[in-house]
Amino acid sequence: MNKNRKKIAIVGLGLMGGSLSIALRKVYKNWDFIGLDYNSKHSNQALCLGLVDELADNLDDITDCDIIFLSIPVDAIISISKQLTNIATKTTIIDLGSTKEKISKSIPHNIRANFVTAHPMTGTEKFGPTSAIDNLYKDKVVVLCDLEKSGDYQENLAKEIFTNIGMNIICMKSKSHDRHASFISHMPHALSFALANSVMAQEGSKKIIALAGGGFRDMSRIAKSNPTMWEDIFRQNRKNLLESIEAFENELRECKNMIEDKNWEDLNKWMNKANKLHDIIE
Amino acid sequence: MNKNRKKIAIVGLGLMGGSLSIALRKVYKNWDFIGLDYNSKHSNQALCLGLVDELADNLDDITDCDIIFLSIPVDAIISISKQLTNIATKTTIIDLGSTKEKISKSIPHNIRANFVTAHPMTGTEKFGPTSAIDNLYKDKVVVLCDLEKSGDYQENLAKEIFTNIGMNIICMKSKSHDRHASFISHMPHALSFALANSVMAQEGSKKIIALAGGGFRDMSRIAKSNPTMWEDIFRQNRKNLLESIEAFENELRECKNMIEDKNWEDLNKWMNKANKLHDIIE
Repeated sequence: MNKNRKKIAIVGLGLMGGSLSIALRKVYKNWDFIGLDYNSKHSNQALCLGLVDELADNLDDITDCDIIFLSIPVDAIISISKQLTNIATKTTIIDLGSTKEKISKSIPHNIRANFVTAHPMTGTEKFGPTSAIDNLYKDKVVVLCDLEKSGDYQENLAKEIFTNIGMNIICMKSKSHDRHASFISHMPHALSFALANSVMAQEGSKKIIALAGGGFRDMSRIAKSNPTMWEDIFRQNRKNLLESIEAFENELRECKNMIEDKNWEDLNKWMNKANKLHDIIE
Repeated sequence: MNKNRKKIAIVGLGLMGGSLSIALRKVYKNWDFIGLDYNSKHSNQALCLGLVDELADNLDDITDCDIIFLSIPVDAIISISKQLTNIATKTTIIDLGSTKEKISKSIPHNIRANFVTAHPMTGTEKFGPTSAIDNLYKDKVVVLCDLEKSGDYQENLAKEIFTNIGMNIICMKSKSHDRHASFISHMPHALSFALANSVMAQEGSKKIIALAGGGFRDMSRIAKSNPTMWEDIFRQNRKNLLESIEAFENELRECKNMIEDKNWEDLNKWMNKANKLHDIIE
């Protein structure tokens, strides 16, 4: 465990950045944590909550940091990375964006080795520093992409940090990541938004929603997610997302056809097949 | 609270029946609980777990009970109700089926007043007596349908019981219930099954599923539900279910079209609209 004093910047003090700070501060007790968030309400909240030790006003104030985490929307990661070219050779920049291919490709060439592109497969539907929680990262998967483009020092440091906060590391190409993430995260978000809107569009929707049990609550939870953040993700992963939505539509159409045709035997088999998912994840 | 000694039968000793027994025994400590389940493994488990005091072999053994709960699949409720005609005037039969119109209509005329048709809006994806849990019913909604067809005595007793185990009672016509339930429960189950199958059909599905975070886990949880139970529900609520699936398909198509057309502004508005669900349910 690296216990040397380091200066660490967290850009974006929301759920992901705030919870990361909580996790890191438990392990790296003598590091200095500097926060930057262009939403002044959020940056002040983060300081009050003790998520960071001090606030930076702009990117110039953090270029001398040893490690810079970018826990901001995916489009902002791309624009901010272009403004971070004035850094030392050993600086490590780790972005936590939910899409990876466009980010990985758009990082300026002269700082590409400084960058480790990561996607922690964790989160909640909440946002802002007040939503930051302990153990958001513990025992979760983090995907590290295109590591051959990162410097050895940066790769090892990122792996050490993610391991020390209890994460399980999976490495893959950003192209594969984006396809996988569209199926396991981005398309399910589209479904949840569509489910919420389809129920609210019905006559007597309040009466319907009053009946909601655990199943509906679980399926509509992520429909509370931040639209601006998800607009960026959907834009960056547009092609994969469209393909995964179509794959889902085909399955649902198959289900609908079996119900229409009263083909109960095949419907039962189809549901049995779905049950098998839980042999793979608990 | 009615503390008079009563004989109560629970037909179907799975998640719903077993958890109901746990809830009732906390309130009605001196009642006798008799269990009936045609799956002998389940009935023996229920006895061993102390969910019931004794087991009945068949329906004839329970016709003298004061209260009979039917916590069995919806098609079985219809067939069992036709075999329960030999009961006393004051006997109360309460079914817990997830569909209500066909059940309400098919109860034999001479015992219709004995029946209270109920749908507790609670459950988990698990089944069998070992899945029975404390507090499954507490603070949840139970829908009572077509109460004008139940006897006053039966209606009041059912309301008293559901209130005493901590449930919130909503009354409505079975026709409305089935439409509402298709949106809030049955269609979301179809989505969850379709989501599980669409992900498992992809190349490298195990690698994809290894990345699952909380969102995917929540959305695929009910894809673990019992296919035979859900085949019955889908059959009985076929028309409403098809309509609710189509309403969902239209919303998802709208989402897909906005992504295809790169109409990010409208997509953002559409997601903002979905966020409003959570002003209605927390």
